[in-house]
Amino acid sequence: MPTNSPITTNNENIVWHQHAVEKSQRSAQKKQKPCVLWFTGLSGSGKSTVAGAVEQALFELGAHTYLLDGDNVRMGLCKELTFSDADRKENIRRIGEVAKLMADAGLIVLTAFISPHRNDRAQVRKMLPETEFIEVFVDTPLAICEQRDPKGLYKKARAGEIKNFTGIDSVYEAPKSAEIRVENGVQPLSQAVEVIVNYLKENGYV
Amino acid sequence: MPTNSPITTNNENIVWHQHAVEKSQRSAQKKQKPCVLWFTGLSGSGKSTVAGAVEQALFELGAHTYLLDGDNVRMGLCKELTFSDADRKENIRRIGEVAKLMADAGLIVLTAFISPHRNDRAQVRKMLPETEFIEVFVDTPLAICEQRDPKGLYKKARAGEIKNFTGIDSVYEAPKSAEIRVENGVQPLSQAVEVIVNYLKENGYV
Repeated sequence: MPTNSPITTNNENIVWHQHAVEKSQRSAQKKQKPCVLWFTGLSGSGKSTVAGAVEQALFELGAHTYLLDGDNVRMGLCKELTFSDADRKENIRRIGEVAKLMADAGLIVLTAFISPHRNDRAQVRKMLPETEFIEVFVDTPLAICEQRDPKGLYKKARAGEIKNFTGIDSVYEAPKSAEIRVENGVQPLSQAVEVIVNYLKENGYV
Repeated sequence: MPTNSPITTNNENIVWHQHAVEKSQRSAQKKQKPCVLWFTGLSGSGKSTVAGAVEQALFELGAHTYLLDGDNVRMGLCKELTFSDADRKENIRRIGEVAKLMADAGLIVLTAFISPHRNDRAQVRKMLPETEFIEVFVDTPLAICEQRDPKGLYKKARAGEIKNFTGIDSVYEAPKSAEIRVENGVQPLSQAVEVIVNYLKENGYV
């Protein structure tokens, strides 16, 4: 990291006081309090849909955001990871670390991953300063998720073609005290978005 | 990812056309063209110092930046990696992936890692859209780096206490066609910063 020593140049009129740009400056520049909105829920619960709609609403409010989801993480940063328990854990850990770096960059980060294990989510929470981790439980009943089955995965899991599928033959550990809980499919999407955006407004993030 | 279907709410007056926030929107919001300034050079060459000073200059111009370096990456995202060849490669790959995500978020990313192997740097270049990877060679002579020896590492490497130290018993492959080359220690820091900031201005990044 740069030191705090002044830099003198050949031109005697220019003296810089060099110091690293700090998180608080990036946050002030963006007029927001950075945080990680960690969406968790079953496959098909609507995590990505709700997170995407929240991101759009925040963008329209002038916030600086980024959405991490399977589309931009699985084929890149985590491309060598399988769906074994150890690799799922490492997957969540890396996403947590990237979200932390992005929050350090001053952004409001949204992540949309099943992240079925309470412990893994707790690990990410611990990485971050208190109040920067906001768990959002997208609490859509399994029956609705399975009925939607947007990628046909539940059908395959029921047929035994996919093993260790969350909600079928692999456990989903619902959050016990998520900061926010929404019911996608039970309440309209716009209401879920409102609940989340209002939480951010009321708590001074935006 | 969110679909493009309109969302209707209980309130008939509100209809959203949902779509993901796009990179071009994030870039326009920040009034900059995102990119990755990839600093490479020997240990003690001044990569972090130059990158830190560039970040500060960019911040003062109103740019949205983030600096990835050993301080914020080694103990987090890459904490299990050693200094073996395979792990160094994986280290650079992950940093490249994170830099790519941050550029996708609309930021100007600065990275300060020795990244001694031409192939590893070429891999990162390939990950990114053309013109988003800007290689900055901090071309400080080995003799000067060794004389500075800010962390006492060269001394240990010469004494055989550290193995595979870049420049001593491990190769540094200098860039053949870096977009920018600066000489830290030969030219004043302020000049190096000017060269880099001018490159960004002239090429429309800021």
